[in-house]
Amino acid sequence: RYCYERNLAVNPQGGNTGLVGGSVPVFDEIILSTVLMNRIISFDNVSGILVCQAGCILEKLNESLEEQGFIMPLDLGAKGSCHIGGNVATNAGGLRLLRYGSLRGTVLGLEVVLADGSALDCLASLRKDNTGYDLKQLFIGSEGTLGVITAVSILCPQKPKAVNLAFLGCLSFSKVLETFTTCRAMLGEILSAYEFMDEKCMELVEGHLNLSSPVADSPFYVLIETSGSNSTHDEEKLNNFLEQAMTSGLVTDGTVATDDKKIKASHRFLFLRERITEALTHDGYVYKYDISLPVGKLYDLVTDMRAWLGRSAKNVVGYGHLGDGNLHLNITAESYSHSLLDAIEPFVYEWTARYNGSISAEHGLGFKKKQFIQYSKPSEAVFLMQRFKAMLDPKGILNPYKTLPSSS
Amino acid sequence: RYCYERNLAVNPQGGNTGLVGGSVPVFDEIILSTVLMNRIISFDNVSGILVCQAGCILEKLNESLEEQGFIMPLDLGAKGSCHIGGNVATNAGGLRLLRYGSLRGTVLGLEVVLADGSALDCLASLRKDNTGYDLKQLFIGSEGTLGVITAVSILCPQKPKAVNLAFLGCLSFSKVLETFTTCRAMLGEILSAYEFMDEKCMELVEGHLNLSSPVADSPFYVLIETSGSNSTHDEEKLNNFLEQAMTSGLVTDGTVATDDKKIKASHRFLFLRERITEALTHDGYVYKYDISLPVGKLYDLVTDMRAWLGRSAKNVVGYGHLGDGNLHLNITAESYSHSLLDAIEPFVYEWTARYNGSISAEHGLGFKKKQFIQYSKPSEAVFLMQRFKAMLDPKGILNPYKTLPSSS
Repeated sequence: RYCYERNLAVNPQGGNTGLVGGSVPVFDEIILSTVLMNRIISFDNVSGILVCQAGCILEKLNESLEEQGFIMPLDLGAKGSCHIGGNVATNAGGLRLLRYGSLRGTVLGLEVVLADGSALDCLASLRKDNTGYDLKQLFIGSEGTLGVITAVSILCPQKPKAVNLAFLGCLSFSKVLETFTTCRAMLGEILSAYEFMDEKCMELVEGHLNLSSPVADSPFYVLIETSGSNSTHDEEKLNNFLEQAMTSGLVTDGTVATDDKKIKASHRFLFLRERITEALTHDGYVYKYDISLPVGKLYDLVTDMRAWLGRSAKNVVGYGHLGDGNLHLNITAESYSHSLLDAIEPFVYEWTARYNGSISAEHGLGFKKKQFIQYSKPSEAVFLMQRFKAMLDPKGILNPYKTLPSSS
Repeated sequence: RYCYERNLAVNPQGGNTGLVGGSVPVFDEIILSTVLMNRIISFDNVSGILVCQAGCILEKLNESLEEQGFIMPLDLGAKGSCHIGGNVATNAGGLRLLRYGSLRGTVLGLEVVLADGSALDCLASLRKDNTGYDLKQLFIGSEGTLGVITAVSILCPQKPKAVNLAFLGCLSFSKVLETFTTCRAMLGEILSAYEFMDEKCMELVEGHLNLSSPVADSPFYVLIETSGSNSTHDEEKLNNFLEQAMTSGLVTDGTVATDDKKIKASHRFLFLRERITEALTHDGYVYKYDISLPVGKLYDLVTDMRAWLGRSAKNVVGYGHLGDGNLHLNITAESYSHSLLDAIEPFVYEWTARYNGSISAEHGLGFKKKQFIQYSKPSEAVFLMQRFKAMLDPKGILNPYKTLPSSS
C-alpha cells in the first residue's frame, strides 16, 4: 500500500460488475484486487452478525449463512461474482432493500485502508454504538475514492421459512401503484419485493430469449415476493390479497407460486425479471439509466422519453424496484450514436432534477456519471464532498477521476 | 446564526431529554432552541416519507402519522417532549429499533445549518440516492457538534393492525437468550421488541411504585411485542411460541395480552418496563450506563459489577433491549459519592472494552462521557473525528466541550 509514498494511483477492484465504470482504471492506475481476501472472520448465530473480508463473493456468503438459518440482507443479479467490499463501496441496493433496508443500516462496521496506507479499524460488530461520529458511513458508497474497504461487519436477517411469488398483469401504471398500496396493507410485514416491468420489456424477453409470459398480455407486469416464517399464514395472506386485487379490477390476470411443486414456475417468474438486462443486449446498443423518483412520477419519465426520442430510438423500456421508487430506464438503438446520446442527455437528468429525483439510485457515479452530480446535489454539498476527498486523499491517488467532478 | 462572525458559541437544544448532557450548556454558550420549528412540511402516503422541521415532538409526529395509517420508525420513553431533530442528532435508539432498524437507515435527508451560518440542503426524500458521499450521515449522531439539524426527511413504516404483548419469567440469563432465539424463529417478521429486566428491577418497581408483576417471581423477566398485519395469524404465532417455550422449560411463567379487552393489562406490562427509570430515582442517587455488548456477554457485566462493588452500592440492576445487544446498567446508592464513582469508572469501561462493546449504545457521549471515547474507538478514529470537527467548525463554536475529547 505504499503507493502513497511513490505517488502511485490505485484503482480498487472487486468483482468488476458495476454499471458506471467505478472499478475500471481510467489511465495508468494500479489495480488493487480484493480477490484473495475471501475469508469469513466470524459469525454469531444469536445476533446474526457476520464479519468477513472484503473479497468474499456475495452468493458464497449467502450460501454459507443459509446453512446456519440466515441470509445476506442484500441480493443482486451479479451475486455470483460481485464482492461484498464492492457492494459496500457502492452502497448496492438490489432486490431485498424493500424488506431489509439499505446497507447504511445493516453494515455495522468496516476496516478501511486510507490513502497513506494506514488501516482504520471501525470493524465493530455491535448493533448499536453511539461513540463519536460514524466514520464508516463516509466510506459506504464512496466508490473507493476515500479509502479501500478491506473487511465488513454486517447484520444478517433470518432465512425465511416460506417464500412465495406472484406474477400479475395491470392495465395502467396507476393500477400498478394502487396494487402496491393494497398489497403493502394486506401483505404487510411479509412483503419482500415489489418489482414492475412494462410490456416492452416482456416483448424483448419473449422475442430475444424465447421465454413466455405466465399471464395474459398486459401493459404492465408486477412481480411480488413474500418471505415469512409460517407458510400457511403467508399463503393465506397472499391469496386474500390476490382475490381482492382481481375482484376490484386492480389486476387483470395473476398467477401464484406458493409451494415446492410450483418452484419451477416460481423460478420462471424471477427468471423473466432477472433476464431483462440480457434481452436488452440482444436488442442492440443499450443506454442505461438508474433513476430514483417519487413513486407517483416514476413511469412518466419513460413515457416522456419515448415521446421525446420518437423514432430515433429502437426501444425505450422501463422496469425496476417500484417499492423503493427506483426505475431502470433503458433505451436501445441498432448501434451507438452520439446524436442519440445528445438527445437523451442531459434531457434525462434535467427531467429527474425537476422532480427532485436522483440520477443514480443504486449504482453510484463512477467515471461515467461524475460530471452530472449537480443534477442531484446542490453545489455546497459537492464542495463539501471535495473537501472530504482532499482531506482524506490529499495526493488524489485513490480511484482517481471517479465519483466527484474535479474541483475548480 | 451569525454567531460565527462574532465568535459566539452555540448550544443547540431540543426537548432537553438526553442522558449525557449533550443539550446542556457548559459555560457561556448561547442556547439555540428548535422549539418553534415544529411544522410538518410534507407526507407522502404511498412511499411513507415524512419531511418535517427539527422541532417537531416525536409523539405528535407519531399521532399525526397514525391518522394516515403510518407510524414513526422510533419510539422512546421521552417521546412526549423530545424533538425529532435531537433524536437524529443523537442517533436515538429506543424500542422499535429491533424491527425498523436504526435512524442511519430510515433518515433519508437532512437540512443542516453549518458553523458559518450557511444551510446545507441534503433534504432528499428518496429511498435510494447514490450520488456522491452521504454527507447527512456525519450529522446523525454528532450531537450538534458539526452542524445544527433544522429539518428531517424520514421513512415511516405502516401502522401495524395488530399489536400483542407477552410478559414472561425466566430462570436464568441463558434461558433469556435461548428464549430469544426460539422466539425469533417462531415469531419471525412480527417480532418488534424483545426487552428484558432482572428481578432487582422488578423489586424496585414493586417497592417504590406499588406496581405488581403479572407473572410469578423469577430471576429474569422478558417483554415481547409483536406487530403485524393480521391479528389471527399473529395470535396463533404468539400462542404457538408460548406453548413451545413453556413445555420446553425455557419460560417458567407467562401471560399474553392479545385483544382489545386485555389492552389495560398490556399497558401494564409496558408500564412496568417504562417506569424502571422512575423507580430507580426513588431508590437514591443513580449511576447510569448505556452499554452495547455481544448478546451472550450482556448480563455478565451486571453480575461482575455487583460482585466488584459489594456492599458499597445499594442496588446494581440491569435491563434493556436484548434484541439489540443493549444493556442499561444502573447502580444506586443513598447519595452521590466520589469514591463509589471511582470504583465504577473506569471499571465499567475497561470491562466493556475487553469484550469489544460500546460505552454508549444509544445515548451519545455528550459532555459526561467524551473523555472515555478511547474505550470504544481506536485513537486513529478519534483523530479523524477531530479533523472533521476542525474542518466543519474551525472556530469550535458548535456545541463546544461535547462528544470528542479536546485534541492535543
